[in-house]
Amino acid sequence: MPETSPETVPGTTALIAGGGALPAHLARAMEAAGIPFLIAQIEGFAMDEADRWPVETFALERLAVLFDLLHGRGVTRVVLAGTIRRPRLDPERIDPRTAQLLPRILPYLAQGDDGLLRAVIALFEDDGFAVVGADAVAPDLLPAPGVLTGVAPSKADEKDAARAAAIVEGLGAVDVGQGAVVAQGLCLAVETLPGTDAMLAFVAEAAAGCRPDPKGARGVVYKAPKPRQDRRVDLPAIGPATIEAAHRAGLAGIVLEAGGVMVLDRPETVARAEALGVFLWVREP
Amino acid sequence: MPETSPETVPGTTALIAGGGALPAHLARAMEAAGIPFLIAQIEGFAMDEADRWPVETFALERLAVLFDLLHGRGVTRVVLAGTIRRPRLDPERIDPRTAQLLPRILPYLAQGDDGLLRAVIALFEDDGFAVVGADAVAPDLLPAPGVLTGVAPSKADEKDAARAAAIVEGLGAVDVGQGAVVAQGLCLAVETLPGTDAMLAFVAEAAAGCRPDPKGARGVVYKAPKPRQDRRVDLPAIGPATIEAAHRAGLAGIVLEAGGVMVLDRPETVARAEALGVFLWVREP
Repeated sequence: MPETSPETVPGTTALIAGGGALPAHLARAMEAAGIPFLIAQIEGFAMDEADRWPVETFALERLAVLFDLLHGRGVTRVVLAGTIRRPRLDPERIDPRTAQLLPRILPYLAQGDDGLLRAVIALFEDDGFAVVGADAVAPDLLPAPGVLTGVAPSKADEKDAARAAAIVEGLGAVDVGQGAVVAQGLCLAVETLPGTDAMLAFVAEAAAGCRPDPKGARGVVYKAPKPRQDRRVDLPAIGPATIEAAHRAGLAGIVLEAGGVMVLDRPETVARAEALGVFLWVREP
Repeated sequence: MPETSPETVPGTTALIAGGGALPAHLARAMEAAGIPFLIAQIEGFAMDEADRWPVETFALERLAVLFDLLHGRGVTRVVLAGTIRRPRLDPERIDPRTAQLLPRILPYLAQGDDGLLRAVIALFEDDGFAVVGADAVAPDLLPAPGVLTGVAPSKADEKDAARAAAIVEGLGAVDVGQGAVVAQGLCLAVETLPGTDAMLAFVAEAAAGCRPDPKGARGVVYKAPKPRQDRRVDLPAIGPATIEAAHRAGLAGIVLEAGGVMVLDRPETVARAEALGVFLWVREP
């Protein structure tokens, strides 16, 4: 019998990677923790630092082939990470077995994210994989409750955070967004498909004159998962660029729902917040 | 006894004017319908075409004085119209009787619009005035259900309109916004304090690449009152500029909740829509 290689050890974790920074964060975390893993990059998307690890690429039209490959490599659990702008499917590339799977996700393609992600998770689970969240392989990404910066929220900021939290909670009922900006009790922006940075750029450009008291509370951006979303996928994340965008939007601080929002590059993120005088508050819901 | 002048005829309507185009529309409509009226402009705001009629200006800090003036002029009903960005109050200018009234609205200043407007309406009603909506004096502002343009919505546009209507309905629960943009089932933007034009500019700038199928449905902007708002005040309105903003945002059309959204300059609004190939649909909820 051949020696057991790391690739075939039962218990390998597959990182199913979309685009952006998160997949590399998780790969580094698993590397550091000694967790055996492989990376499967979804074709058409590009994770950062892809050249640091061996990466398999697969087409969504051939999902059943990926399942076979993962089983063959001893994968027992998967983590889905990274951004996936709704992909288009090329009908001619769909293999027969994947053709059996796709009808289960097609009805969700034109709806909100939640249904689609739930359906994708179910496909993996039905094929025998455990689906875990990013925090299962990189718990440090979810900071404990508390204020992470020297600057702390004021009483007015606390009220704005509570109002923003209620708004994001309400938006969840219609499967829209994972964030909102509130200043002096007024909703300046709601996060939609273009994302957090676009929302903050909107506040910088269009909402500067909307605060009733120009010398009053500058407002907060609140980030949370959608209340009904599956927290194993698509948890919101912030990083140093979010701090800078919040600062450009003239906001006093960033508020994260405790346990529900990942902080990437935490040392650098906190350092940027301190440098710009923006507070970063992990708030218990 | 002096002859009864038009100013003292019981049954005069007072137009309480904020800023913008709506007050002048209502004044013209009342003029055309032969309804006796006077205009009370809220200090700090400027209605369009203010020089066409005699206009009284009053400070919010002296609301009780306005009430006396209105009673003295035979006013029995009032209509509130025009934009009011949250005004600041100068405590030193508040007269003693208004000081008795203001505590009833102060708790609402830092909350959503609905509570504040309800409280203001209650102040007028408690002083003996009937408060009516703009449509009571200018019914033509609310078009009947139907498609007002030669261009009509497609099946995909109808689905986008239904999803947008559900989103605006859901936002009402948290007292945010009177509009949303949906394309191919996806929410591209939600209206917040900066208003419809700012939302459409956001879509033009930030959401152009968010439609999964570049050749698919271009999406719609949906406008409706907040589901729980008092329809006598702050009904949403569109006009020719809205058509142009929707066109710049790459949208197929504009959908209005029937009976809930005013169309200003209807001939010109419809003409702009026809010229730009944007449909205008008054949709039954």
